[in-house]
Amino acid sequence: MDFTLHMPANVKSGDGCVLKNSGLIKSITRRCMIVTSPHAAKASGALDDLIKALEKENISYAVFDQIKENPLVETCMLAGKAAKYFHADCIIGIGGGSPLDAAKAVAVFAQNEGLGLADFYKRNWEKPALPIILIGTTAGTGSEVSATAVLTQPSGMKKSVTDDSMYATLVLADPKYTRSMNRAVSVSTALDALCHAVEGFLSPRCTDIPMYCAKVAIPMLWQGILELQKYDTPGPALRERLYYGSLWAGLVMNALGTSMPHPLGYVLTEEFDVPHGRACAAFLPRLVLTAMEHSAERAAALFDMCGCDYETIEKTLLSLSDTAGIRMNEALIERCRARWKDGVKNFKNVPGGFTGEMGCELIRELFTEK
Amino acid sequence: MDFTLHMPANVKSGDGCVLKNSGLIKSITRRCMIVTSPHAAKASGALDDLIKALEKENISYAVFDQIKENPLVETCMLAGKAAKYFHADCIIGIGGGSPLDAAKAVAVFAQNEGLGLADFYKRNWEKPALPIILIGTTAGTGSEVSATAVLTQPSGMKKSVTDDSMYATLVLADPKYTRSMNRAVSVSTALDALCHAVEGFLSPRCTDIPMYCAKVAIPMLWQGILELQKYDTPGPALRERLYYGSLWAGLVMNALGTSMPHPLGYVLTEEFDVPHGRACAAFLPRLVLTAMEHSAERAAALFDMCGCDYETIEKTLLSLSDTAGIRMNEALIERCRARWKDGVKNFKNVPGGFTGEMGCELIRELFTEK
Repeated sequence: MDFTLHMPANVKSGDGCVLKNSGLIKSITRRCMIVTSPHAAKASGALDDLIKALEKENISYAVFDQIKENPLVETCMLAGKAAKYFHADCIIGIGGGSPLDAAKAVAVFAQNEGLGLADFYKRNWEKPALPIILIGTTAGTGSEVSATAVLTQPSGMKKSVTDDSMYATLVLADPKYTRSMNRAVSVSTALDALCHAVEGFLSPRCTDIPMYCAKVAIPMLWQGILELQKYDTPGPALRERLYYGSLWAGLVMNALGTSMPHPLGYVLTEEFDVPHGRACAAFLPRLVLTAMEHSAERAAALFDMCGCDYETIEKTLLSLSDTAGIRMNEALIERCRARWKDGVKNFKNVPGGFTGEMGCELIRELFTEK
Repeated sequence: MDFTLHMPANVKSGDGCVLKNSGLIKSITRRCMIVTSPHAAKASGALDDLIKALEKENISYAVFDQIKENPLVETCMLAGKAAKYFHADCIIGIGGGSPLDAAKAVAVFAQNEGLGLADFYKRNWEKPALPIILIGTTAGTGSEVSATAVLTQPSGMKKSVTDDSMYATLVLADPKYTRSMNRAVSVSTALDALCHAVEGFLSPRCTDIPMYCAKVAIPMLWQGILELQKYDTPGPALRERLYYGSLWAGLVMNALGTSMPHPLGYVLTEEFDVPHGRACAAFLPRLVLTAMEHSAERAAALFDMCGCDYETIEKTLLSLSDTAGIRMNEALIERCRARWKDGVKNFKNVPGGFTGEMGCELIRELFTEK
């Protein structure tokens, strides 16, 4: 048994929580920069609500709304500079994983003028990040409750950085903001959340608290994904279940990191523009197979929680990930080999162990002509 | 559904966690004051381990070991002054609820010279508390994971104060330190923890996260208490279960506060020296009865978790609380009436509602001659 736990963000949830907690926002910032994407923040209604809350409390703000999907670290650097010129004392991220992760990086760059890319990834910076407030608009990332940002390097490769100062001070979690997601985004983000929960749950390093969180998250998300397939426009109750499920899954990821599907999924996203959640889900069945071999009891508990067997899980995930037509060539596999040759820290969450070489083999098996 | 959550302490658990995390301690303090009781910290081995860790990292320290049970707020004031003279940058509490709660108050007084009693209780202070590290040696208080300190006023009455800056920065949770508790202390502290979990679980304000935590805590603690009765010297596995159970229960209390048994229990402690946990347990059966009337489903879930009916719970708790012989007089009941006349904020956690007048009636029914 154990009781290891670290999730310092203050999470306020529920309908209207942004406006209800304007006083809390004021206790953190007098002059903030909002970091978001060009459309989502407005479409979801989150930006309007936030601006109302800021104006009610006489908090000054600027908006940087140029964060795209799979955000570039250079964009964050630029936004950090803008935040510094604006004398922002806090960064507020609104959006899915891309703007939220970007907001964390912006909070670091705003405090550390001239910080270069290499030093950023090595956390070789002097001052901790500015205080961060996060408002989620998708039900997937879990970024609200982690200290990690995944950003795209100039090489085009995604890479994560984690630092305690990148935890949000305050998270405002209102499920209604996720209602503006279309069906494709809803499915992909729900798959991402499911991967966070399952990758952690199957890890040999999974301790008691993330284990309990995964046991809450997995049934919520799996049943949610099955229901999501039935509707063109999911109702508020399903939206709520998927959003809070993604936060429970975020707690799992925060405690353990991801495992094999995430790092391998990056390749599908970088090279074939597969949305992040679908890309991870393409590899999740193989992780479950590995668990059946090396951690049979945990795998059985997973099937029990999902109420189905391996075949149903595999069929559902592969159909939703929609990556069957993708073919990779040997040059790409060579690049993966080079990328993973020094190991990937999250591979230690794979039951039975996993290496870069095994990753290359798996990609060859799944994505080259037989 | 909801996902409201706030527990910023970084909790490291497990055998040897104090020595293993000396680097983390160093990231928080260079010069600290240890606040503890005259005996427990030494008997448990926690003080020795901590001093080893501090010396390994060249951290200066002073020891204030004069915290008694039900600590006086004046003692904390005095220790705060000592911490200031020592130029401590951090307070480390070692012990059960009394030293841990005292450490939180000392961290406030050390930062706010000349702060008076009234202003302390009103949180009318300028600077937030010094960083706090907590090391528990009993399996009951849950103080490790709350921002609350319960201290005895000059009037002899206990009163709590809660402030976000009183959350521990770091908690080092090693169940082996609880092995030095004798049987009487083990029982009383386990009852305290059970009350934290049940008082929160039965609250109409209980939200999803404390609900899940209570569902983990209650079976661990109830079964633990039943086992505890069988042994003179509980084994390490039972100690571990009771200690981590007390932390899960602490998360419930942190989210909701206590309910009716705690404030009423204070009277038994202040006037008849009944140990805190036993004093609270004396009133817990009545809270369960109230829940059966006003929140039948929640009460049924409680019986299900405990694997028994109301009668068994009542009989067990009343026998362990050992307060049957106590008799109160009308003068004491009048003092309670005056104390509770403006309401007690935790009474809002009682299903169906509760008032000071109802508290007086309950005391009269249970503790005056029929």
